[in-house]
Amino acid sequence: VLISDQVVAPLHGRPLVDRLGARGIPTELLTFPAGETHKTRPTKDALEDGLLRLGAGRDAAIVAVGGGVTGDLAGFVAATWHRGIPIVQVPTSLLAMVDAALGGKTAVNLSQGKNLVGAFHQPCAVYADVRVLATLPDRELRQGLAELVKSAVIADAQLFRWLERSVPALLDRDESALEHAIAGCLRIKGRVVARDAHDRGRRAVLNFGHTVAHALEVASGYALPHGTAVSIGMCIEAELAVEATGFPRPQVRRLERLLQRCGLETHVPAHLSREEIVCATRRDKKTRVGRARYAVPRSLGRMLPGAEVTVEVSEDDLRRALGGPG
Amino acid sequence: VLISDQVVAPLHGRPLVDRLGARGIPTELLTFPAGETHKTRPTKDALEDGLLRLGAGRDAAIVAVGGGVTGDLAGFVAATWHRGIPIVQVPTSLLAMVDAALGGKTAVNLSQGKNLVGAFHQPCAVYADVRVLATLPDRELRQGLAELVKSAVIADAQLFRWLERSVPALLDRDESALEHAIAGCLRIKGRVVARDAHDRGRRAVLNFGHTVAHALEVASGYALPHGTAVSIGMCIEAELAVEATGFPRPQVRRLERLLQRCGLETHVPAHLSREEIVCATRRDKKTRVGRARYAVPRSLGRMLPGAEVTVEVSEDDLRRALGGPG
Repeated sequence: VLISDQVVAPLHGRPLVDRLGARGIPTELLTFPAGETHKTRPTKDALEDGLLRLGAGRDAAIVAVGGGVTGDLAGFVAATWHRGIPIVQVPTSLLAMVDAALGGKTAVNLSQGKNLVGAFHQPCAVYADVRVLATLPDRELRQGLAELVKSAVIADAQLFRWLERSVPALLDRDESALEHAIAGCLRIKGRVVARDAHDRGRRAVLNFGHTVAHALEVASGYALPHGTAVSIGMCIEAELAVEATGFPRPQVRRLERLLQRCGLETHVPAHLSREEIVCATRRDKKTRVGRARYAVPRSLGRMLPGAEVTVEVSEDDLRRALGGPG
Repeated sequence: VLISDQVVAPLHGRPLVDRLGARGIPTELLTFPAGETHKTRPTKDALEDGLLRLGAGRDAAIVAVGGGVTGDLAGFVAATWHRGIPIVQVPTSLLAMVDAALGGKTAVNLSQGKNLVGAFHQPCAVYADVRVLATLPDRELRQGLAELVKSAVIADAQLFRWLERSVPALLDRDESALEHAIAGCLRIKGRVVARDAHDRGRRAVLNFGHTVAHALEVASGYALPHGTAVSIGMCIEAELAVEATGFPRPQVRRLERLLQRCGLETHVPAHLSREEIVCATRRDKKTRVGRARYAVPRSLGRMLPGAEVTVEVSEDDLRRALGGPG
């Protein structure tokens, strides 16, 4: 059963259903309305009712075709249908290709928070075909570049230097540049997830930039897109890392410059309340005894060694790094 | 957070909340309406909304206090809250103590079938206190005895002989007899589950009697209680095993006699359609290429060795074993 949102279904879902059918694999299509606001329990219920109508049993499999919302939602449906059936992820946005599709995190949102109900359910396979990125809006492409840069910062200085050289090719959607970048990213994430699938220790390295990013998303009422929030979050957290881990200040500038060349924001929007951002960091999942923790690098391509990859930073230091108006 | 249905909550839920509180473990109570008809997605949603109201995060844990419905439902809530938080099972019915509480199978029902949406989520601990069985109706006690007998048949001839001697003590709710029986049962199930938690092979031994039992439940519109259905199912499947695995016919009689002494049914109720029962076996989860399979013993206390524990039986043989009116 192929699951896709109503925007992606006609573009990539239906054609894949037909191609699978032609190969002798009977495939049905289930769709849902596009957008993060539909990543909810009622949408999951509706997809399950669809599986029931189709008579899908324990021997069914799901193919998720779409962005992060589709992967999270269809992944959660697969995780709980008959206590778990296989899923193949076919991400169609750059952000989903380099992040959401791999790692097995699935969930729906509740009105009070993102991803509060979900499961770990690893995909059998992730198919990322760069040709589908041809139809992706520029704005969406940039969102994916943010997570690409993050992967390089946390694990691969060589990939970071390659990105510095290849921004123009990536923005031009050069297929071989995109393939090189996506493959590098998935290798990094795959290695981290394989060692800590259930997010109990080292997997937190993937969270560089995300303590601040999530706080920015909350403070903006989710108006700030995820990639933009991660871009700004990385700049703020790199600044914090100068004190916290000895991250070299010139590398903060290199990171900012690379993100700017990708067309991404690097400063907190003036209209967001600094105090609300600080407050929101206290509700981060890495928070311990009420104190926010940050997964920050020691240098470009290197995180802290060992199982403890996060550091505590005082709220005053955070306020200073956020800068701008109060 | 302690989860209990509205019947069990005042008996055992609230007192345990108070005792945990007195020990310095802050505990809140969430309840739901009692009965299998409430083991649904809307009830799960309501419990999740309750967790949200209580501010339960990744560091919360759930304690399920009640019968099989509570364990399945609260277990599924725990399996997906923040992608999985710990659960402690405190079964209060004999059936839940010897079966549902251990093994990590959690689920809710959809209108078209039982346990269609769920997850595997092992409890950190199972606390079975035989003193709570004092308030259990006789009818419910007998339901549990059916699964007790099943455990003995599939793995422990000595336990079977002990049951033959101890039926009067068990029906009298003798605490040490109940403890011996429950501990024996949990040891057997624990061993099986530890080797095949996700039900891909040998765990099917736990399904003795259940291919027919599930078909009886469907054919009766779920009017037949689970233990009763398992009791009848074991008698029918033992009959099938005489041909299929060489199960000794005198042992079929011993099994029937033991179940009858427990106050359990051993024959298919006359009003149920034999053809509907046969039909329903085709939708069993163990069915392969449309043919029902049975997890049947070779003799009292012994199943087939190896990973393949089920056998195929023709529908004509099943019709003969079902006996009675058409």
